[in-house]
Amino acid sequence: MRISELSRSTGVPVPTIKYYVREGLLPSGELISRNQASYDETHARRLRLIRALLDVGGLKVAAVAEVLRAIDDPKRPVHKVLGSAADQLGPALSDDDDAESAAAGVTVAELITRRGWRADESNPAAKDLTRALAAMGRVGHGAFSELLDDYADAAELVARADLAYVDRRVEVDDMVEGVVVGTVLGAAVFNAMRRLAHVDASAKLLGQGRDADQGSEAAEDY
Amino acid sequence: MRISELSRSTGVPVPTIKYYVREGLLPSGELISRNQASYDETHARRLRLIRALLDVGGLKVAAVAEVLRAIDDPKRPVHKVLGSAADQLGPALSDDDDAESAAAGVTVAELITRRGWRADESNPAAKDLTRALAAMGRVGHGAFSELLDDYADAAELVARADLAYVDRRVEVDDMVEGVVVGTVLGAAVFNAMRRLAHVDASAKLLGQGRDADQGSEAAEDY
Repeated sequence: MRISELSRSTGVPVPTIKYYVREGLLPSGELISRNQASYDETHARRLRLIRALLDVGGLKVAAVAEVLRAIDDPKRPVHKVLGSAADQLGPALSDDDDAESAAAGVTVAELITRRGWRADESNPAAKDLTRALAAMGRVGHGAFSELLDDYADAAELVARADLAYVDRRVEVDDMVEGVVVGTVLGAAVFNAMRRLAHVDASAKLLGQGRDADQGSEAAEDY
Repeated sequence: MRISELSRSTGVPVPTIKYYVREGLLPSGELISRNQASYDETHARRLRLIRALLDVGGLKVAAVAEVLRAIDDPKRPVHKVLGSAADQLGPALSDDDDAESAAAGVTVAELITRRGWRADESNPAAKDLTRALAAMGRVGHGAFSELLDDYADAAELVARADLAYVDRRVEVDDMVEGVVVGTVLGAAVFNAMRRLAHVDASAKLLGQGRDADQGSEAAEDY
């Protein structure tokens, strides 16, 4: 199909498609004349994946390029693709070396040991967790670490579901893409779900007369 | 204290502090001479909160300003502040009206009913959830919605822990800030934790001989 048809079938404007090709996110179409290229269903599918990672996953263009390179590398084992996708989700921060960072580092190391997780403290996710906890400590919410095991229970539940989903996909191509979609878009799904569960939990909490003048409107107004 | 001392005690450069004051994120200091202002511990605390929301929460400056306005408005009930903080977390997307959006909308409405959540489908979090599921549908992962109840179990677990944490804070000021920190930074904590749980779950899955040539290095290399 022509680029105009590709644009129509995916809802992505032609100049945007050209930009993705220039940035290496999308393979260029097959040249059928000096200034016309032909695209097929694989381009449409890749384009939808790019939009999903950008719009819903909240990744930057460079991060999407990195994830797609990992998907396209046939020599790259699945768990490295998973790692690459996951690492794009974390904020790009430098390490701090204050007291809160040190305390948070100990907390995370203890958590990993306590849960028996086969993950190293040098893992990017462990570092991001350390940074998030250190930031909480700095704003006076060090006590938040009391919740870590509840969070870990929930994270294990989600991770088991994700892995079972990926495992069900038979073809390797599908599996790799499933891993990426699950990792990046799954985070967006869970964040939205957590906010919804907050609405429900606070409506129930306030509705029980704990704070009656706010409670009656809590469910609608949140 | 002077702005230079404020900078030293928080690690935020002086020009950045001045920028936050111009953007309305940080109240200006008390003028003690024509070109010198005095800052106190409330400024330092607010500055740490701003950095945490920007760096770890991943909010944009405008979103931080919105959240802080909600915190500072004494007439604003707690659940509205919570809503304001939560809504800054979602991607700012327009509604789509394709088949996937319609299907995802039905899925979310059914989920809310099935879970007995006191939340409306018009809630921004419900809309973000719909968008994330529609995006998955578009890239061929409509089957992901099979995982929704596992995700919902996990989200309820996290939301209960968050609310209990907020409820423990006695002073209203602290409570409001706790809600914001818990909502924004809690999402960063959970995302990092989910990635760690993935590392563990895939190490265990691969380690059980399902894919032996990758399994041995999975835990370290992820």
